[in-house]
Amino acid sequence: MAEFKTDIEIARAAHKRPITEIGAKLGIPAEDLVPYGHDKAKISARFIKGLENKPDGKLILVTAINPTPAGEGKTTTTVGLSDGLNRIGKRAITCIREASLGPNFGVKGGAAGGGHAQIVPMEDMNLHFTGDFHAITTAHNLLSALVDNHIYWGNELEIDTRRVTWRRVMDMNDRALRSVVTSLGGVANGYPREAGFDITVASEVMAILCLSRDLEDLEKRLGDIIVAYRRDKSPVFARDLKADGAMAVLLKDAMQPNLVQTLENNPAFVHGGPFANIAHGCNSVVATTTALKLADYVVTEAGFGADLGAEKFFDIKCRKAGLKPAAAVIVATVRAMKMNGGVKKDDLGHENVEAVKKGCANLGRHIENVKQFGVPVVVAVNHFTADTDAEIQAMKDFVASLGAEAILCKHWANGSAGIEELAHKVVQLAESGAAQFAPLYPDEMKLFDKMDTVVKRIYRGLEAIADKPVRDQLHAWEAAGYGNLPVCMAKTQYSFSTDPALRGAPVDHVVPIREVRLSAGAGFVVAICGEIMTMPGLPRVPSSEKIFLNEQGQIEGLF
Amino acid sequence: MAEFKTDIEIARAAHKRPITEIGAKLGIPAEDLVPYGHDKAKISARFIKGLENKPDGKLILVTAINPTPAGEGKTTTTVGLSDGLNRIGKRAITCIREASLGPNFGVKGGAAGGGHAQIVPMEDMNLHFTGDFHAITTAHNLLSALVDNHIYWGNELEIDTRRVTWRRVMDMNDRALRSVVTSLGGVANGYPREAGFDITVASEVMAILCLSRDLEDLEKRLGDIIVAYRRDKSPVFARDLKADGAMAVLLKDAMQPNLVQTLENNPAFVHGGPFANIAHGCNSVVATTTALKLADYVVTEAGFGADLGAEKFFDIKCRKAGLKPAAAVIVATVRAMKMNGGVKKDDLGHENVEAVKKGCANLGRHIENVKQFGVPVVVAVNHFTADTDAEIQAMKDFVASLGAEAILCKHWANGSAGIEELAHKVVQLAESGAAQFAPLYPDEMKLFDKMDTVVKRIYRGLEAIADKPVRDQLHAWEAAGYGNLPVCMAKTQYSFSTDPALRGAPVDHVVPIREVRLSAGAGFVVAICGEIMTMPGLPRVPSSEKIFLNEQGQIEGLF
Repeated sequence: MAEFKTDIEIARAAHKRPITEIGAKLGIPAEDLVPYGHDKAKISARFIKGLENKPDGKLILVTAINPTPAGEGKTTTTVGLSDGLNRIGKRAITCIREASLGPNFGVKGGAAGGGHAQIVPMEDMNLHFTGDFHAITTAHNLLSALVDNHIYWGNELEIDTRRVTWRRVMDMNDRALRSVVTSLGGVANGYPREAGFDITVASEVMAILCLSRDLEDLEKRLGDIIVAYRRDKSPVFARDLKADGAMAVLLKDAMQPNLVQTLENNPAFVHGGPFANIAHGCNSVVATTTALKLADYVVTEAGFGADLGAEKFFDIKCRKAGLKPAAAVIVATVRAMKMNGGVKKDDLGHENVEAVKKGCANLGRHIENVKQFGVPVVVAVNHFTADTDAEIQAMKDFVASLGAEAILCKHWANGSAGIEELAHKVVQLAESGAAQFAPLYPDEMKLFDKMDTVVKRIYRGLEAIADKPVRDQLHAWEAAGYGNLPVCMAKTQYSFSTDPALRGAPVDHVVPIREVRLSAGAGFVVAICGEIMTMPGLPRVPSSEKIFLNEQGQIEGLF
Repeated sequence: MAEFKTDIEIARAAHKRPITEIGAKLGIPAEDLVPYGHDKAKISARFIKGLENKPDGKLILVTAINPTPAGEGKTTTTVGLSDGLNRIGKRAITCIREASLGPNFGVKGGAAGGGHAQIVPMEDMNLHFTGDFHAITTAHNLLSALVDNHIYWGNELEIDTRRVTWRRVMDMNDRALRSVVTSLGGVANGYPREAGFDITVASEVMAILCLSRDLEDLEKRLGDIIVAYRRDKSPVFARDLKADGAMAVLLKDAMQPNLVQTLENNPAFVHGGPFANIAHGCNSVVATTTALKLADYVVTEAGFGADLGAEKFFDIKCRKAGLKPAAAVIVATVRAMKMNGGVKKDDLGHENVEAVKKGCANLGRHIENVKQFGVPVVVAVNHFTADTDAEIQAMKDFVASLGAEAILCKHWANGSAGIEELAHKVVQLAESGAAQFAPLYPDEMKLFDKMDTVVKRIYRGLEAIADKPVRDQLHAWEAAGYGNLPVCMAKTQYSFSTDPALRGAPVDHVVPIREVRLSAGAGFVVAICGEIMTMPGLPRVPSSEKIFLNEQGQIEGLF
């Protein structure tokens, strides 16, 4: 039994190896590792280019049930599985998203995994890291400034100032910036108009960076961004403002994947971090495809539960990047099953096998859903110390009844030694060749039908509904040549329905598509199904009040 | 004669040495160099702490005449002199400011020096560099978010929302953000109020970072920031919002000096970059004091001409940090003398000895002014190819008549070989022990009298004037304990007067103090004497339109 240390205590006690040594394990020469400190590095574009003709390793997706306040440990399991694969002799790389800086000052920060399955240096990863998000913020806001500057100098492109869709971004929880009026104060400051800020992870530039194959593709997509419409509703592109070149220059370094390490000194790529509601919620394509060239196994995760995260991973990222996942792991916990079965958070400490059985309905549906994509599934039961044998057995029996296997994993307490069984099972699934990946719907399907398909086949609702203006908008985009794009559903992560309180496996619900947005550069159509917040606020007592440097110069209060 | 290559061509042809090698020249072990790529590094806090008991080298200030459109080459001379000192066997470090990112997308970017006297890598230095400015932006805006968040949750501190003085910042030229109304859109977004953005270099956090001795001093000063006033006009501090700790955490890495190199592989610290009007316009105290521990000579520069830049360097930076400059170099050019003598820019190509003589009045006054601080002076005549012998001789004669020496410098064309004579002269002045540095006015002088002293003794005006509200405000600050702070004059850089068109050496002008601002964290009182722009705009054809990545992945159009 491992001692009970906090995540940060474990992370600080880590025996980090120099990042050049981690890179060398992957065959990356020191000159192709661009260091950021001694424990972080970017991988040079030149080196990545040279990998083109190498064969790919196997891609493993880690996803989860719908999140509950009990916590599932998806990232912890992603890191743990990767360490476990390395332990059993496979060369494996973890690929996860970068953390958004702003929210850390609202509530206690998100670490990169937990317990003995973490990525380090966690302080840096929750702060500026290698500056990628700052670069995205800057590129985004340069485009914003160019829009208003163009209007100021005569508006040759005839932008309708009421129809500027390109907002500004900041990596900060600042509700005061959600809705603002800009250009006040007189002639010298331009033409007043309604505007607003989103948090940086909600920027289309973030989604673009994460879906671009290389710098050339990045620049092309940046040019495709629609910033505004004219009175005749024709779009104005970033390319029309000649913004794409300068934005690509600002993103040059941010495009390169970041190499860090797990507590067990195995390589991890931490790169990109788009919102998982209005965007696709996956780490970058460049990081994933690079990792596949360098490893036998690449373990990656998708945002939220499998209904949102895995669906977008498959239908947006894999579809667009030509990725073929070999297996999927669905993370679940006894505690979360109990909450799905109706138990309150305060009562999770008591054995309740019936509640576990009842809550398994949620897990069962995710298993079925992932299998629909032709990807074989295994369930990782992320162990908590209060879990009883009977509860665990109930989960195992349930999963077995669906023709899959649930494996108890103790990586949080024991690192890779606690997750060997899962690692072996993943290898068996991946090497069986059982995977027959295909996205859920074809490119050619109409946009609204794509949304309806996700609602029916993944959310198991009755149908998607939308008012005429939404349907008209979708038809207009189809007419303009955007009909072949995948859809990106923005829905609550807590339920298969649009009601966050409806846990378990609801049926017969209707999913209203309230609004649609075109991310023409990223290459998807967003369907807004419910209240989606793109700029969070701070709580009454923000965690910033407790964050400080201690006498050793270490950061306290961030975790 | 050197070939005529552009700055960027010369910079790209540079034979950069690994930054660890540059650090090793200064005795910095590799583990105390925190790398950012292979050609940039921060110096660890631990290493700097260990230098405390080492003796200091000699500090040389490079300043200039009032800037003209002809260009003076202050940074070029700073870099050249440092290379020249190294050439003649002195260990010398250049200490200059970091560049602001935003303005590069408006007009063709500022390089770090020029010709054969440059600091590299210049692309990085004009873009994200080591992320310092992004960290400052983030720390500043965290405080902004905390102010509005405090008001949102009940405003326990009773902030008067009409008197919030803390704005937001962005490192971008975006005139639309100068004046905005925030928190629109309903209850969830807070209380609407007038607000605005400045460019990051105008942030008080920038000034604080540049004046702080160490992280502890930084955190204390951050807490001292005044963010707003109550209805009774009592100040609300950043400390009251418990923001200082989290801000210090965000600035932890940004506080460490950045090591880069000159084209001749000599060490350069490039760190901090406060505005030179509403702030003091010098690189960081930490960089300068660290460099003094590591070198025989530290060559640094101050913003704008000597009337603004050198005065603030002496009266704010040196006063507060206990620095004692050993000599000063005033950069001037034949071309700039001619412009000061009434010649138009298009006519600068023709010999005009009389105009040179006439324009020397401006130079002469700066020589006298710097001597007032007890610092010996030499004039560097930064050579341009069209300069004639007669014109150069006229400058030399004029300077000699004031008891100083003017030395022709050809570092732009020839690097250190072109500036040996100046280097020898600087060594002679510094080693003569002639310097008897003292600031212009004592701490105890009343705030308005300090302003009046600068006007009379430096600008040679009749007097400073101010309306009653301004004088009352100064008295109120004196009563509140801020009377001992130095003053920071915000005036046009183009003239000794407040009229930018008045070149040469005007007399008898009156300097109106229109507004005063208290930078309680940075530790100075700003006197606004004229229109001061703290958020620039973009031109009709912004340079961003020409910036792109070429097929080799190199940045084009930035310079």
